[in-house]
Amino acid sequence: MLKSRVILAMDKPLSYQVLKEMENELYGIKVGLPLVLDLGVDKTRELLIGLDVEEIIVDFKLADIGYIMKSIVERLSFANSFIAHSFIGVKGSLDELKRYLDANSKNLYLVAVMSHEGWSTLFADYIKNVIREISPKGIVVGGTKLDHITQYRRDFEKMTIVSPGMGSQGGSYGDAVCAGADYEIIGRSIYNAGNPLTALRTINKIIEDKVMKCKGAIFRKK
Amino acid sequence: MLKSRVILAMDKPLSYQVLKEMENELYGIKVGLPLVLDLGVDKTRELLIGLDVEEIIVDFKLADIGYIMKSIVERLSFANSFIAHSFIGVKGSLDELKRYLDANSKNLYLVAVMSHEGWSTLFADYIKNVIREISPKGIVVGGTKLDHITQYRRDFEKMTIVSPGMGSQGGSYGDAVCAGADYEIIGRSIYNAGNPLTALRTINKIIEDKVMKCKGAIFRKK
Repeated sequence: MLKSRVILAMDKPLSYQVLKEMENELYGIKVGLPLVLDLGVDKTRELLIGLDVEEIIVDFKLADIGYIMKSIVERLSFANSFIAHSFIGVKGSLDELKRYLDANSKNLYLVAVMSHEGWSTLFADYIKNVIREISPKGIVVGGTKLDHITQYRRDFEKMTIVSPGMGSQGGSYGDAVCAGADYEIIGRSIYNAGNPLTALRTINKIIEDKVMKCKGAIFRKK
Repeated sequence: MLKSRVILAMDKPLSYQVLKEMENELYGIKVGLPLVLDLGVDKTRELLIGLDVEEIIVDFKLADIGYIMKSIVERLSFANSFIAHSFIGVKGSLDELKRYLDANSKNLYLVAVMSHEGWSTLFADYIKNVIREISPKGIVVGGTKLDHITQYRRDFEKMTIVSPGMGSQGGSYGDAVCAGADYEIIGRSIYNAGNPLTALRTINKIIEDKVMKCKGAIFRKK
């Protein structure tokens, strides 16, 4: 059984001690650029390297030419996985990033649908084609857009789906998983809480209870 | 008269001394994420703060929700300007970033057309609408795509156009300016040169000569 369906979005530093207390109740940690700007690469690595979580995902929403994206990820070898945008396209960009990550046993997630209101869904067909061509480990679909999660789950049966936008951005815990996501990405509701561990436990329980009840949920094919 | 139409793309550190020698022959400096990951924010600021160039542009190709983009730019107050993707849309994203930058007297550039082959131009109308709605100081149009530069120059007569992709990526120096760009962004051909100052001077001369000859060029309306 999964120990947790929560990926902690860490855009602000939490102490090593607090992270150590949470590690058994998290699936993974998503590292944001604000955190890396605050700590620097070396201290970010030091903070994360001793933690026992399944996956460390660096989320800089990479959206550049291949040369620049490779220059970025090669400096962050403590991560297991990286998030990039699909809309930037394949040739000279995502193809080069994917080859580099494959050669270095790192994973790629592509952004399919963002969580904010202004994200346009006019280009869904284009984005799906890029995802098919690149074949990443997973995709990012905003947890505020449950219909899109279900649609992407149907279209990409075996891909991991991670959903940001839960909590502070308006998504209700557990709804993204019930719509077809594998993990929910939660940041401010945990790291801004007086007691992050208690907040995480409460959220884990809410998700677990909701998932028990959500009949008809579509889960990823293994 | 402009002292130079070159913006140095600095993705690798150059010494303060070399930068100081070049400052009078550059329009501006574009700071990439690989450089900031190498030096950290404080040392990047120290390296740039004493330089006499018109504009320091941080180019992280921002493409996130408003909250995260604001968290990033507020940590980089040494910059005059920031580059973000137009593709991500307005509400909850670029609108919040633009308001924050306006309130802090910083400029925004939006990516219109990237320089790599795989960039799709399917979304040109959408992207132009976002640019009209956000009204940034300038836009980024790949220097390998001269027709697009001319098209954007016609559509956005008063906006600054900066063009990357010159040199190593295949664009010929001066061609982007002749097509309607204001500045050409040049990185590897300068910072990887044995003598960056000599390389810059040679490039400035090539651009100047070409601009003298390019009849019919469309320049920005002041």
